[in-house]
Amino acid sequence: MSDKRGLFITFEGGEGAGKSTQIRMLAEQLRERGLEVIITREPGGSTGAEAVRHVLLSGAAESFGVRMEAILFAAARNDHVEEVIRPALEKGTVVLCDRFLDSSRVYQGTTGNLEPDFIETLQRIAVNGFMPDVTLIFDIPAAAGLARARKRADEGAVPDRFEKEELETHEKRREAYLDIALADPRRCRVINADQPLKQVAEDVWAMVEPLLNKPAPQKQASQ
Amino acid sequence: MSDKRGLFITFEGGEGAGKSTQIRMLAEQLRERGLEVIITREPGGSTGAEAVRHVLLSGAAESFGVRMEAILFAAARNDHVEEVIRPALEKGTVVLCDRFLDSSRVYQGTTGNLEPDFIETLQRIAVNGFMPDVTLIFDIPAAAGLARARKRADEGAVPDRFEKEELETHEKRREAYLDIALADPRRCRVINADQPLKQVAEDVWAMVEPLLNKPAPQKQASQ
Repeated sequence: MSDKRGLFITFEGGEGAGKSTQIRMLAEQLRERGLEVIITREPGGSTGAEAVRHVLLSGAAESFGVRMEAILFAAARNDHVEEVIRPALEKGTVVLCDRFLDSSRVYQGTTGNLEPDFIETLQRIAVNGFMPDVTLIFDIPAAAGLARARKRADEGAVPDRFEKEELETHEKRREAYLDIALADPRRCRVINADQPLKQVAEDVWAMVEPLLNKPAPQKQASQ
Repeated sequence: MSDKRGLFITFEGGEGAGKSTQIRMLAEQLRERGLEVIITREPGGSTGAEAVRHVLLSGAAESFGVRMEAILFAAARNDHVEEVIRPALEKGTVVLCDRFLDSSRVYQGTTGNLEPDFIETLQRIAVNGFMPDVTLIFDIPAAAGLARARKRADEGAVPDRFEKEELETHEKRREAYLDIALADPRRCRVINADQPLKQVAEDVWAMVEPLLNKPAPQKQASQ
């Protein structure tokens, strides 16, 4: 990879952590700096990945095993990397991606009961040595995240039995994300998402700004 | 796996090697012995695999990279193993499968220019430790195979330039299959497919019959 390589930032975390809002805000700030930015998301993001997404959402998917589903996600990710992310980075673009391989680790590995070895092998195949420069993990207590995801007014309501199970699953995912951050501190930064929007945005900026020397600005890249 | 496990036989080789005819003939002989037999084939063979096949053949596939395509084949294989092959074997059935993982090694690896490491990792994921008991590799000189595949009368015709390239590809595949047989002699048997149908059938039977003590006959299996 050349010196003109862009910057690849992934956004991870449970539902209701406010990732998409923060991605939009960060993109705006980066563009004000004169940087070329694209926003993308998984699953999907490229023609091939959308085709796979279509299969995953089709009627046939009901009979799929978790393993086949995980492999299909990997195929979609591979296409997304090769067709969209890698070419953008090679042009010096900043790529902001809503969910990436850590989502598979957490959703299919931890709460989908697939063996960590299987998931790791699959991710190696999917990304083909291509890792994010930085991953921002949006951390929020499960109850707050769930409440936000539902855009509820009654955040203080006592959860019923079903909600309690959901809360436990969210809490497991949260822990799995924090474990990933601990295991890979060079790549991962934990963002406290349980704060006012503006404060979260400031924290995000504080983590991203120091990395901006690395990618070449748009003009130098287009030679 | 229990003692009642069936027998998993895969059939490999280039085009025009006569695999499907031999599979039908073998199935008949096995059924005469009172064995339960299913015939299946790749790609496809299960609901999930058919869905993936649909994606592979769709318009979207034109933009797919070879890597994504290989991963999709692996997803289909995994579904085929988990939904069709494994359950059949657990009931003591003999499973005859037209093409399996060696086809990926040869078609996507050797002549598709994907790295052997990538292909091997992918196969490990696809079959999840589940290997054929025996693989019959139908070996035939490229020219004879191509001619047969085209059901041509003029087998002796001198090949034009395009056909010559095709011949070279076929010859590469043939060598790749023979390398697989050399590397895994416990599982693989090479069948000389450049013989009259009946002789090939006798050779196939000579290789399969000794294995028939292992699977339990149908009646014992259905308890």
